[in-house]
Amino acid sequence: MTISEADLSRIAASVDEDRLWRMHMEMAKFGATAKGGVCREALTPEDNQARKLLAEWAAELNCHVSMDAIGNMYIRRPGSDPSAAPAATGSHLDSQPTGGKFDGAFGVLAGMEALYALDAAGITTTRPIEVINFTNEEGGRFQPGVMGSQVYARPEELDRMLNVIGQDGVKLADALAETRNVLGPLDDHPFKADVAGFVEAHIEQAPRLEETGNTIGVVTGIQGSRKYSVEVIGEEAHSGTMPMRRRKDASLAASQMVVGLHRLMEDPADVIRFNVGRMQAYPGAPSVVPGRVQFSIDFRCPDDDVREALGSQIAGLCKALAGPCQVNVNEIQRSNTVPFDKGVMDMIRRAANRADAPNMDLLSGAGHDARNMAALCPAGMVFVPCKDGISHNEAESATASDLAAGARVIAQTVAEMAG
Amino acid sequence: MTISEADLSRIAASVDEDRLWRMHMEMAKFGATAKGGVCREALTPEDNQARKLLAEWAAELNCHVSMDAIGNMYIRRPGSDPSAAPAATGSHLDSQPTGGKFDGAFGVLAGMEALYALDAAGITTTRPIEVINFTNEEGGRFQPGVMGSQVYARPEELDRMLNVIGQDGVKLADALAETRNVLGPLDDHPFKADVAGFVEAHIEQAPRLEETGNTIGVVTGIQGSRKYSVEVIGEEAHSGTMPMRRRKDASLAASQMVVGLHRLMEDPADVIRFNVGRMQAYPGAPSVVPGRVQFSIDFRCPDDDVREALGSQIAGLCKALAGPCQVNVNEIQRSNTVPFDKGVMDMIRRAANRADAPNMDLLSGAGHDARNMAALCPAGMVFVPCKDGISHNEAESATASDLAAGARVIAQTVAEMAG
Repeated sequence: MTISEADLSRIAASVDEDRLWRMHMEMAKFGATAKGGVCREALTPEDNQARKLLAEWAAELNCHVSMDAIGNMYIRRPGSDPSAAPAATGSHLDSQPTGGKFDGAFGVLAGMEALYALDAAGITTTRPIEVINFTNEEGGRFQPGVMGSQVYARPEELDRMLNVIGQDGVKLADALAETRNVLGPLDDHPFKADVAGFVEAHIEQAPRLEETGNTIGVVTGIQGSRKYSVEVIGEEAHSGTMPMRRRKDASLAASQMVVGLHRLMEDPADVIRFNVGRMQAYPGAPSVVPGRVQFSIDFRCPDDDVREALGSQIAGLCKALAGPCQVNVNEIQRSNTVPFDKGVMDMIRRAANRADAPNMDLLSGAGHDARNMAALCPAGMVFVPCKDGISHNEAESATASDLAAGARVIAQTVAEMAG
Repeated sequence: MTISEADLSRIAASVDEDRLWRMHMEMAKFGATAKGGVCREALTPEDNQARKLLAEWAAELNCHVSMDAIGNMYIRRPGSDPSAAPAATGSHLDSQPTGGKFDGAFGVLAGMEALYALDAAGITTTRPIEVINFTNEEGGRFQPGVMGSQVYARPEELDRMLNVIGQDGVKLADALAETRNVLGPLDDHPFKADVAGFVEAHIEQAPRLEETGNTIGVVTGIQGSRKYSVEVIGEEAHSGTMPMRRRKDASLAASQMVVGLHRLMEDPADVIRFNVGRMQAYPGAPSVVPGRVQFSIDFRCPDDDVREALGSQIAGLCKALAGPCQVNVNEIQRSNTVPFDKGVMDMIRRAANRADAPNMDLLSGAGHDARNMAALCPAGMVFVPCKDGISHNEAESATASDLAAGARVIAQTVAEMAG
């Protein structure tokens, strides 16, 4: 059954900017940092508190809460046809160690606001609607990130992920057991269940919407990426005595690599993204020539051919710049650019226009859970601006009015998907 | 009273290579690592065990053990004139986190072996002889290093040092209280007490003795050094989205600085020593552009003018290479080249020749406790070879025969100083 234009407009009008903002501020208390950001890494006590509050709101909405074997949570609003596959929206409540209030949380809370708006508009859809809170999107504590949606789409990876050991030495399965303990008994949700469509709201994490004066980004896809872990092996020596000519200095070699790799990735069009986010010398004593440096590489680019060509030069360049040191370059993740569904993009564009929100098409530079959902169903994403494009930073900021515009688009889009 | 050539030869002949080696192997058990090295940082349980064994050997030698307010231990063999200032030798029993069996320990154990040899030779000197175990020479756990001898020579720094917080969050005064607890009651020893002379044995930590086939290095002095702590301030951002042109990437800026500083310090004569031993990016997540990098600089050079000139360019070069980042360069330690006493060098040279040990003059690249003692009394040092010049490394190695040669020189030198 197709939902009427009038109903869609009524749903958009029922989105409550103040309620949505209050939900963000309530969530931001869990893991709040002194600098106004959030440290709420996956399956920590802070994440568990956020999950608990989400379940309380679901109860207030008379929605059913279930959880799957990797900890993804599903808030289900019934439709008139209980056997129909649901329309889904959502994102993640976990954050980077020094993250902001909106990355991830907005996608979950825009979904919850859509449910409140549907109630307020008195709409019952044909299909059920599910708001999903995916586990461990950020991947700071447990690697890799985008884990919950990845296991949802590829359940064969569950066992491997449950055995991942976090930065703090905790096994994921043990952290998840504690999460279950905090949340109390919940029904099980299967992986890879039939879904009619998926749409995810998110802050843009880049400055293009802000620079162009648009409120809504109709996301065309997610750029591909290659991620590496690099280990430079030198030789520990006394820094005051060992002649320079005889040193195997891992911090010098690693620094040469980082400078050389940035040169390789230079791009006047500023499309390529390249980052060394982790870099540490061992043993880390001022008077010891470091015998080892570890660093990470995160390399992204929309063009699959360019990414293949440049990515394949990384290991060779590191070796060429290693001097007397050895270097091991391990590729730990690799994904092609994923295009989103044209039909979902059309729904998002129409919803934005219906809500008078200026909009533009754009490609996502960041990975998101929607990438994994796109393998299972028609999927898309809605971006809203964030101040100066800053995220993965405690200073991350977005306005209540832009968030509400995004929620209006999400509410209409899931309603249209749910019919 | 001058000691006779015959007595000096008898003392040298009484040095027992096996006993000296056994003492090293006993000490190396405290903090022994899987790779054959030692992790025995200052005032840890491992260091306390080493100190306890030292006190037991002192008791076996009927020597008096005392300790000062920074934890330096003094093993005193009486002389015939109890009011005379002692001749002193010694070094330190603490190690780097990934250190070897000989760095420091050899200087203390060569002193103990000298006491055994004097007993075996039936010699009573005029002055007392003191073997000193200085606290925290390495400076890995508590900064700065060479701390015990520094406070001995400048007691006004005691309070500041007692309040130093270690890498593990422990206050030095609290660690020292535990050391006292383990050792049991000991007499107090004053700082800056009158000393007739000081000689310290040490592995060379450089390959010149080995390269030239010499067994004994007559150390002419200790090269000066400047040490800095550098903080690069960037801005955290999402690594997949933030345009490169808008990033403030602290790992790129820091890498450029490290490469640029090594270029500044390039020296065809290979006299200058330059090291970045500590280097770490924060928050250290692969998908976050690092907002901060901290690194250390250890810069040494025998020529005071060259060190002044190059050192004064470090902060400016870092700023020039910071790109869009900010950088704070703090000089945390600075010392000029310290020449050793000609008279002590002569004693050492004669002692080496008396023991048929091929010897050469050389400057020490590393800092040692003898540098601080040189401010108080005629001081000098004796080097023995270590394999491939490697130290501050678990692979550090020295031969029993070279160590014994060094102990023969120490035994004669303290005996001649003590008369």
